[in-house]
Amino acid sequence: MNHKQLFEQIKIKRSFLCIGLDTDILKIPKHLLDTPDPIFSFNKEILDATAEFSVACKPNLAFYESLGWQGWQSLEKTVCYIREKYPNIFLIADAKRGDIGNTSDLYARAFFEKLDFDAVTVAPYMGEDSVKPFIAYPEKWIALLALTSNKGASDFQFLKDEKSGDQLFESVLKISQTWGTTENMMYVVGATKAEKLKGIREIVPDHFLLIPGIGAQGGSLQEVAANGLNSRCGLLVNSSRGIIYVSEETDFAEKAGEAAKEVQQEMEQLLKEANII
Amino acid sequence: MNHKQLFEQIKIKRSFLCIGLDTDILKIPKHLLDTPDPIFSFNKEILDATAEFSVACKPNLAFYESLGWQGWQSLEKTVCYIREKYPNIFLIADAKRGDIGNTSDLYARAFFEKLDFDAVTVAPYMGEDSVKPFIAYPEKWIALLALTSNKGASDFQFLKDEKSGDQLFESVLKISQTWGTTENMMYVVGATKAEKLKGIREIVPDHFLLIPGIGAQGGSLQEVAANGLNSRCGLLVNSSRGIIYVSEETDFAEKAGEAAKEVQQEMEQLLKEANII
Repeated sequence: MNHKQLFEQIKIKRSFLCIGLDTDILKIPKHLLDTPDPIFSFNKEILDATAEFSVACKPNLAFYESLGWQGWQSLEKTVCYIREKYPNIFLIADAKRGDIGNTSDLYARAFFEKLDFDAVTVAPYMGEDSVKPFIAYPEKWIALLALTSNKGASDFQFLKDEKSGDQLFESVLKISQTWGTTENMMYVVGATKAEKLKGIREIVPDHFLLIPGIGAQGGSLQEVAANGLNSRCGLLVNSSRGIIYVSEETDFAEKAGEAAKEVQQEMEQLLKEANII
Repeated sequence: MNHKQLFEQIKIKRSFLCIGLDTDILKIPKHLLDTPDPIFSFNKEILDATAEFSVACKPNLAFYESLGWQGWQSLEKTVCYIREKYPNIFLIADAKRGDIGNTSDLYARAFFEKLDFDAVTVAPYMGEDSVKPFIAYPEKWIALLALTSNKGASDFQFLKDEKSGDQLFESVLKISQTWGTTENMMYVVGATKAEKLKGIREIVPDHFLLIPGIGAQGGSLQEVAANGLNSRCGLLVNSSRGIIYVSEETDFAEKAGEAAKEVQQEMEQLLKEANII
């Protein structure tokens, strides 16, 4: 999916919500454990309940890998289901990959050929050749970690480069811009650092930002919108636990749909106020 | 496997060789494609031919993931085979993972519970809470990226912190030392930067270093040993393409064994010269 098509979906659905499929076998409703593939059953019901309110979907690979090859099978079934039933959902593999060029080639093959994701989250530590293989695919994207929302973000991301005076996350934003374009690169920016969004928008005014931390991680949607929206929206805001685990009962999907609708309505208001729709 | 046991294996086998299982379906001998699981068949034969000359084994996850869940199944079979037949092999998942704490928990569950690896390679960008879950497991290790061997290493790893004067990879080495011990942390250090090993040894004199780049990536074993060995060896040197793809014919395993033996003999000489054995 390209930039124009993604923006079209945002305007059609009046939403920039991404549903985080952090599907944990230990947290899903107990009645699903009797189905042949509980993880897929859960994802399918969540998708059916939330797809009309969201433009993107982000399975977190760790949750699937914790179940070994069966978890990867559930992931593949989920991706196939989305591709068949919701072809306009922008599909992000939250995988935090990144390796030397010839190995990143293989990761790109995994997520863009074997599985038909639109984007993969990638860690920047290994530099350009670890990133390039992902954006060599037409209409595929990389979501590069810039500023993350966790406590450990402060260990290295704020170190200030002697020469440029930039903090590491700013260097990542500046240097990586030469590797790709606004059509194939977006940046992961932790929403708990919303006060920093303004500065980030000055460095990358036109790129999409993937905001992982609304909901359980505590970011404020209003603050993110105020500092992060651009003329083509430019934001994908993820919510996972705040939507998919609202209920542990048989009504879990219905409740997830309600929670997603609530976020969508808030987003619609914000998009209107910013004259984007 | 703990530090003492790993050093014991190094002394018994007179080797600090790690076999990199970068098993590519496009590169393995054609006759294996007729077997039910070509990737596993290849790994099994490579292991049987090289286990006596090596102390560690490092499957590169990208190669398995590029085949989807079937690739993960081949990986799991490989891990089970090693655990059953070669329990003294130190088993490293070259996965370059790293995410916020509760997600790293799940990756740790994947590699240390679902699969019985001894260590996982992790990217440091997200800091302490992305690393800690892996070393919460007794006798399990993290191999943290410090200085990588690829061209892109120079994009961020050499940025110099204004305050400490340390380059980023030095900050990673220094700051992360407070997170774990020499019993559960090792560092990935690109061998093509062997001239930098001396400085790294001054920062981390007692830690194991995992050197990924001997062989096709062009590092010199003599240079690595001269600058990297410590009193308990402290080195695991990986070779992948230089061993596993020596021959594309039915003699591939035999040739891999010969190549591994050659490296082991060079390592034995180096261990003797350093009075380690």
